[in-house]
Amino acid sequence: MKKITDTELIRSANRRDIIQTLRLHGELARVEIGDHTKLSPATITSITSELVQQGLIIEQNVVLDPSGGRGRPKVKLQLNNQAAFYLAIKLSINEVRFMLGDTSGTIVAQATQAMLTVTLNQEQLVDALSKAIEEFIQHNEVKRSKLRGLGLAVQGVIETQGKGILWSPAIKGKQLELVEQLQLKSQLPVFIANDANCLAVALTQLPKYSKLDNLVAIQLGYGVGMGLIVNGELYQDASAATTEFGHTKFSLNGPQCRCGGRGCIEAYVGDYAIYRDASAIYNLPPTDMLHPSEKQMLDLNQLTEQDNPAMAQIFSQAGTVLGMGLANIMALFNPQKIVISGPGIRAYEHMKESMLRTLHDNLLPYHQAENVVEKHNWDEDMAGLGMITIMQQHTD
Amino acid sequence: MKKITDTELIRSANRRDIIQTLRLHGELARVEIGDHTKLSPATITSITSELVQQGLIIEQNVVLDPSGGRGRPKVKLQLNNQAAFYLAIKLSINEVRFMLGDTSGTIVAQATQAMLTVTLNQEQLVDALSKAIEEFIQHNEVKRSKLRGLGLAVQGVIETQGKGILWSPAIKGKQLELVEQLQLKSQLPVFIANDANCLAVALTQLPKYSKLDNLVAIQLGYGVGMGLIVNGELYQDASAATTEFGHTKFSLNGPQCRCGGRGCIEAYVGDYAIYRDASAIYNLPPTDMLHPSEKQMLDLNQLTEQDNPAMAQIFSQAGTVLGMGLANIMALFNPQKIVISGPGIRAYEHMKESMLRTLHDNLLPYHQAENVVEKHNWDEDMAGLGMITIMQQHTD
Repeated sequence: MKKITDTELIRSANRRDIIQTLRLHGELARVEIGDHTKLSPATITSITSELVQQGLIIEQNVVLDPSGGRGRPKVKLQLNNQAAFYLAIKLSINEVRFMLGDTSGTIVAQATQAMLTVTLNQEQLVDALSKAIEEFIQHNEVKRSKLRGLGLAVQGVIETQGKGILWSPAIKGKQLELVEQLQLKSQLPVFIANDANCLAVALTQLPKYSKLDNLVAIQLGYGVGMGLIVNGELYQDASAATTEFGHTKFSLNGPQCRCGGRGCIEAYVGDYAIYRDASAIYNLPPTDMLHPSEKQMLDLNQLTEQDNPAMAQIFSQAGTVLGMGLANIMALFNPQKIVISGPGIRAYEHMKESMLRTLHDNLLPYHQAENVVEKHNWDEDMAGLGMITIMQQHTD
Repeated sequence: MKKITDTELIRSANRRDIIQTLRLHGELARVEIGDHTKLSPATITSITSELVQQGLIIEQNVVLDPSGGRGRPKVKLQLNNQAAFYLAIKLSINEVRFMLGDTSGTIVAQATQAMLTVTLNQEQLVDALSKAIEEFIQHNEVKRSKLRGLGLAVQGVIETQGKGILWSPAIKGKQLELVEQLQLKSQLPVFIANDANCLAVALTQLPKYSKLDNLVAIQLGYGVGMGLIVNGELYQDASAATTEFGHTKFSLNGPQCRCGGRGCIEAYVGDYAIYRDASAIYNLPPTDMLHPSEKQMLDLNQLTEQDNPAMAQIFSQAGTVLGMGLANIMALFNPQKIVISGPGIRAYEHMKESMLRTLHDNLLPYHQAENVVEKHNWDEDMAGLGMITIMQQHTD
């Protein structure tokens, strides 16, 4: 249980609260910060003075309200976007994407680089990443003194204690000292999170979701990931920090899943599962069976749209499986929103009908899912935005 | 997101923390309270003085350590068990059970009363409960001034906003103003919670579970309930405060569930489901099909023990279904413990083997469930103990 033990902790919590409020709302007067945070004027004055002194926020005088008001000119505060930077690194299969966030959380520079991640052991990966990070920092003229951290967003299973990777399709074996090694090499704080968890955190920064207590983010694509927000915070278990929705079961006797089990949701809905099922019926070009390409997946969409009922049936079955999974999520959490995103939403329209029908058919009578399930357009920045937020939450 | 906004809130949190520490550990010196709570000596002195003044804790001088020590006699603090009382009321089908808790959380008086709850509408239930409460209070000579609250532990679905019951097998229809009406009539604060949630909270008060962040309590019996502890606190969603594990799905095409759906875990594992399946094979005495009696359920155990393979198969299938549900819980939460209790554990030994086998066969390779699943002996006090804790958490 989290405890409130001393005034310093409270002051940092209030400080984070003020910074976060400025991040969400932009330019604000001190009194407006009070409206949002419910902090006392004295607390706000004290903390914002410190933040101004540290260069994290900027004061701007605005034109005196001609009607008079409180008798002195209003001062608006805003974040100094040049004060602090955060480098998010999305680790995918043989591809590394760098996203540089500024103080406000906006991505101000990015680059994608091919890297044979799946062939690299921990030492080699640390070397390759460090080199690429240095290049990115130099190319974008980022001042190291302003860089608050590096954050790895990883497809796969993160080990929270050891701060490394237990399993990921993007790397070779376990890499349990990845964070420590990268920290030593870069001399910067290093953070790590599962990419579906990053998605969930990124969603909490959007005005439409920022006020929700309980939110579920589902990430469709290579696998089927999930991030769970409870009381406004990311749920993380004691060891492997993942909510593995994709490995809950549709059927004990279902198709083989890459996790070794059978009948997991992912074994019907993951890209590899859909491609595998399609190749049982259609004469498809050969592929890396665990990682069909984006183009190959788009070709399956096209097959469906060309009126191939068997292909439509595969997507419809995937939708049914997903719908049962969503019904289970509703039964267990009854979240305010379930947001579905990830590259796999390219086929959302082909799964949607059976998904929603199955969800509604299996909902408890006293639950309602109207307006609960939403699609959120996917772009690769989502993982980076979430990772930048995670870094900010830990360093603000 | 919960916010820390002012010093009064912090003081109450610290106060609760100190009371709770004395509840868990009994008699403690101020310095020992500091070891447990990590609060500063000044904070502890200030808060404990207030608590002594209010009569909530008692100071006891203990013999001066002959070896000297800090130079003055040690004072031990303990809760004054006569300072505050809490009346938990377990509402079951046609039975009401009263459990009176003292300041330490110990049940010091109890009584069970037959009441035709299923025939009573809200007004009638409030009247009948009020009368029974008055009788209980008088019979046990409880001083009203020391009674901090009434707490209803209810089989069924609680509506947290309206503070009433959305659905329960124990009552007639919805009763959405039950709390308000009972509060008006009794002039006491009234609390309400689902009984499986009460079980989960009761478990957090046991030394073996009190330090866990994430814990799942499964309550087997009439239905299959669940309580979820996240970061040491009960998970409650925004509307209906239940984690309905029993209504997650084993199979979309499974047996009819009483919720209206098909193939829910409860439709295989709930008492009514097991009795229904058994009566398809054996010539069983007629029963209330939704609520077979404890004796009738024990008779099914006996059938199994008399070497009736069909009956053993029904329990084994229930175990398999439960095992898949537990595998899903592990995938989603990876909790530190899953504790199974409730009256339905009377058949635990008949379900255990298939349950654990299914769980282990369907576990993710990087999770481990050894020592995670445990049976906890059931008694009717568990719901009361949890409800008393919930009342204490709200009134301390």
